[in-house]
Amino acid sequence: MAFKIGLLGLGTVGTGTAEIILNPSGRHPLLQEIEIHRVGVRSPDKPRSVQLPPEAITTDLEAIVADPEVDIVVELIGGLEPARSLILKAIANGKHVVTANKAVIARYGDEIYTAANEAGVYVLLEASVGGGIPVIKPLKQSLGANRISSIIGIVNGTTNYILTQMTAVGADFEAVLADAQKLGYAEADPTADVDGLDAADKIAILASLGFGGRVKREDVYCEGIRQVSAADINYADKLGFIIKLLAIAQGAKGYESDRLQLRVHPTLIPKAHPLASINGVYNAILVEGEPLGQVMFFGPGAGSGPTASAVVSDITNIVGILKSNGKTESLDPLLTCTHQHYCSIVPIEELETRFYARFLCGDIPGVIGHLGTCFGKHQVSLESVVQIGFQDQLAEIVVVTHDVCEGNFRQALDEILALEAVKTIPSILRVL
Amino acid sequence: MAFKIGLLGLGTVGTGTAEIILNPSGRHPLLQEIEIHRVGVRSPDKPRSVQLPPEAITTDLEAIVADPEVDIVVELIGGLEPARSLILKAIANGKHVVTANKAVIARYGDEIYTAANEAGVYVLLEASVGGGIPVIKPLKQSLGANRISSIIGIVNGTTNYILTQMTAVGADFEAVLADAQKLGYAEADPTADVDGLDAADKIAILASLGFGGRVKREDVYCEGIRQVSAADINYADKLGFIIKLLAIAQGAKGYESDRLQLRVHPTLIPKAHPLASINGVYNAILVEGEPLGQVMFFGPGAGSGPTASAVVSDITNIVGILKSNGKTESLDPLLTCTHQHYCSIVPIEELETRFYARFLCGDIPGVIGHLGTCFGKHQVSLESVVQIGFQDQLAEIVVVTHDVCEGNFRQALDEILALEAVKTIPSILRVL
Repeated sequence: MAFKIGLLGLGTVGTGTAEIILNPSGRHPLLQEIEIHRVGVRSPDKPRSVQLPPEAITTDLEAIVADPEVDIVVELIGGLEPARSLILKAIANGKHVVTANKAVIARYGDEIYTAANEAGVYVLLEASVGGGIPVIKPLKQSLGANRISSIIGIVNGTTNYILTQMTAVGADFEAVLADAQKLGYAEADPTADVDGLDAADKIAILASLGFGGRVKREDVYCEGIRQVSAADINYADKLGFIIKLLAIAQGAKGYESDRLQLRVHPTLIPKAHPLASINGVYNAILVEGEPLGQVMFFGPGAGSGPTASAVVSDITNIVGILKSNGKTESLDPLLTCTHQHYCSIVPIEELETRFYARFLCGDIPGVIGHLGTCFGKHQVSLESVVQIGFQDQLAEIVVVTHDVCEGNFRQALDEILALEAVKTIPSILRVL
Repeated sequence: MAFKIGLLGLGTVGTGTAEIILNPSGRHPLLQEIEIHRVGVRSPDKPRSVQLPPEAITTDLEAIVADPEVDIVVELIGGLEPARSLILKAIANGKHVVTANKAVIARYGDEIYTAANEAGVYVLLEASVGGGIPVIKPLKQSLGANRISSIIGIVNGTTNYILTQMTAVGADFEAVLADAQKLGYAEADPTADVDGLDAADKIAILASLGFGGRVKREDVYCEGIRQVSAADINYADKLGFIIKLLAIAQGAKGYESDRLQLRVHPTLIPKAHPLASINGVYNAILVEGEPLGQVMFFGPGAGSGPTASAVVSDITNIVGILKSNGKTESLDPLLTCTHQHYCSIVPIEELETRFYARFLCGDIPGVIGHLGTCFGKHQVSLESVVQIGFQDQLAEIVVVTHDVCEGNFRQALDEILALEAVKTIPSILRVL
C-alpha cells in the first residue's frame, strides 16, 4: 500500500521534493511507498522540470487538504495565508502535515499544534530551519536528556553570504547586496533576510524546542545587517573577531529556564569559535547543554535539493510511524509539541553582553577620558579603548566592553553622544 | 506509569546515564517517566557517585535481562562477551535494548538485528558512534531521502587528540601518546584507538546505515597512526594539508552502491576542508549525498556526560514510542535494521586515491628521474615531487600523486625500493 501525499506548491522546494519521490532508486526503500497523489499549483499550464500526471495537478488547494485519500499534506507554498488556513484544514481533516514554512510556524505554531494534538496528527517542520541540516529532529529526539543552555545559529544564508563577501573583498553592504541579488542569493525585496526577520522566525522555533515552552515571535529582539560596514568588519578583524548575524536563544536552566534571552543581531565572534568559519550560504547551529557540552550541525541552509531532503525526511518519518502502527493511537511526545506555557523572555535592556562601539570624535586626548568617565558612571567596564583610524579628520575610537547590562550601556551612550567632542557613534555591535 | 530500565554496567557511561535519569529537572519531561529498576555491576560494594537504592543493585546480570518488569535493557558493560549474550537474551525476553557498544554491533549486528526484528523490539545505538553527537538517528531518520555518496568521520577522540598535539608541538607519536595516557585521553593499552580498530567498528556501523546494507567488520581496511611522524605532519603542513585519522565509507549510488570503499587510515586533508579544523578530542562526521550536498555533525566524541546524553536520548525515543502505542505492533522501518544483504566492498588494491610518500635517497639528481620513470610505468601520475629536507645525509623527497589505483602505486613502490639510490620509504599516506 502506498502512502499518498498532497503537495501544496510546486516552486523550488516543491519541485525538489517531487524529484526525490519520483526517483527513489539509491535512497531509503521507504520512499518507494510514497505516492504523490495530488499537487496544488497556481498555474497548471506552466512548464515544469518534473513529470507528473496532468490529472494530479490542480489549482484547488482546498480540495487537496480535504481529499480523503491523502495521508500527508506537504505545505510548500510559503507565506502566512492561505498556508495557515490550509494547514489547519488539513489537520481538521485528520491529515498529517509536513511544512517548510518557518513564518507560519513561528507565528501560529500555538494554534497549529493545539489543533494537531487534538486531531492526533503530526506536524513536522525539519525544513523550516537550516535547510537540509538535520537540526529540528535532533533537538526533539536526540538532545532532550540535556539541560540546554544555549542555541546559537547562523540560520540565514543570504546574510551570511553578504557578510562573508564583505569580509573577503572589503566591500560595503549595499554593493554586496546588489551582487547577491544578481546571483540569486538575495531576493529583490531582501527585507526578510537582511533585517533578520527570517532568522528571528527560526530562532523562535529552535528556542521552543530547546527550552520546552512556547515562544511569541514578537518577543524575539531583532537587528539586521544593514548597519554593518566594511570599516567595522576590518576593525573587528584586527581585534580578532569575525562579524556574523547570529540568532541566539539562551537560558540558564534548560526546560525550566524562566528568563530566556532571544535575539537576532550582527555579532562579533572570536575567530577560534566554531561558528566563525561558517562561510557563504552555509548555515550552522551550535547547541550547548549539560552534560553534553557543545554540538554543532553544519550544512546547506537553503536551496531546492537540501530543503527537499528535509521535507522528504519528514514524510518518511510519518510513513515509518504509519507503517508500524496503522493509525497512531496517540502521538509520540518527542515528535509533537507537548508544552502549554510560554517562555518568559528577558527584555533586551536587561541583557548582559559585551559590546563593540565605534565613535567618531575630535579632540582625542580629552575624549578618551570623557568616554571612560561616562562608561564608569554607568557601571560599564571596558576591555579596550583603541584609536584605530581617521575619517574626515575625525578620530575613530573603538571600544570593547566586558559583560555589561545593555540598559546601562545605552544610558552611557546617550550621555556620550551629548559630549561636544563626540560627533557620531556609527556602530554599536554585540560581542559573543 | 513509569518505564523501567535495567542498566548493565555502572562505569563511566553508566554513572553518567544514572545521573541524568535521577536528576530530570530542566530536561525533557519524558525523563520523569523513566525509572532505573535494576543495575548490574561487578562490585556491588564499590563507592559510587550516584545514589541508587541498594536493592536495585545486583551482580546478577542475567536476572536483569530476564526481569519481567524491565522494559528496556541498557547495555553499558562494553566488550564482546558477556555483552553480546546479554543483549541477545534481553531481546529474546522481549526487551528493547539501548547500547553504546560499537564492538558488539560492528561484529554481531547481523545476529542482533535479526533477533530484534523477529522479537519486535528496538535496538538503538546512538552512543556507539560520535559520543554525544547525534549522528546515528540523523542518518536513519533525516538523511534517507538522499543518495549518500560518502561518510567521512573523525570518530576516535584519542587519535585526534594525539595528532592535534603532534601538530601543535611538533612532537613524535610515542611522546604524545605517553602524555595522553597520563592525562587519561589514551588507555594503558592504546591498541584499539591508535591502530584504528575503534574507528573501524564505527565506520562499519555508519556505512551500514548510510548505504543500506550489512557490513562485515573484517571488510574494513584499517591502518592506525603509529607510522605518522612529526616530519610528515610538518611536510604536510608545508604542502597545505593537516593529517587526521579518517574513517571513510564511499559509494557511488547510495543504497544501490554495489562497490563500497570502506577504510580507516591517517589521511592528508586540505586545510580548508571542514574536517581539517576538528581538533583535540572532538569528533565530526561529514555526510555527502544527493541532493543534499554536505552536512557535518560536530561535538564531543567521548566522555561520561556526552555519551550518557546519547544513551538517554535512545531510552526516551523508545519510551516515546511505547507511550504513543502501548505495545508496538511492528517496528518503525526507519528505526531498525531492515536490510538483509551485505554491501560488497572494493578491495584496497582497487582503491582510487591520491598518495603522499616520503623517500630517503642518496644521489638526488638521478633518483628523481628514476622515481618518475617507475611511477610512469605503473600509470601513477604525479602532482608534485619535492626534495624537502635532509636526514642522516640522505635527501628526503616527498611525492604527491594524482588519483591513482592503489595497486599500481604499490607495484611502483616495490620497484622503487629496489633502486640503489632509494634507501627507505618511511611514510606512505593517502590524501583526501
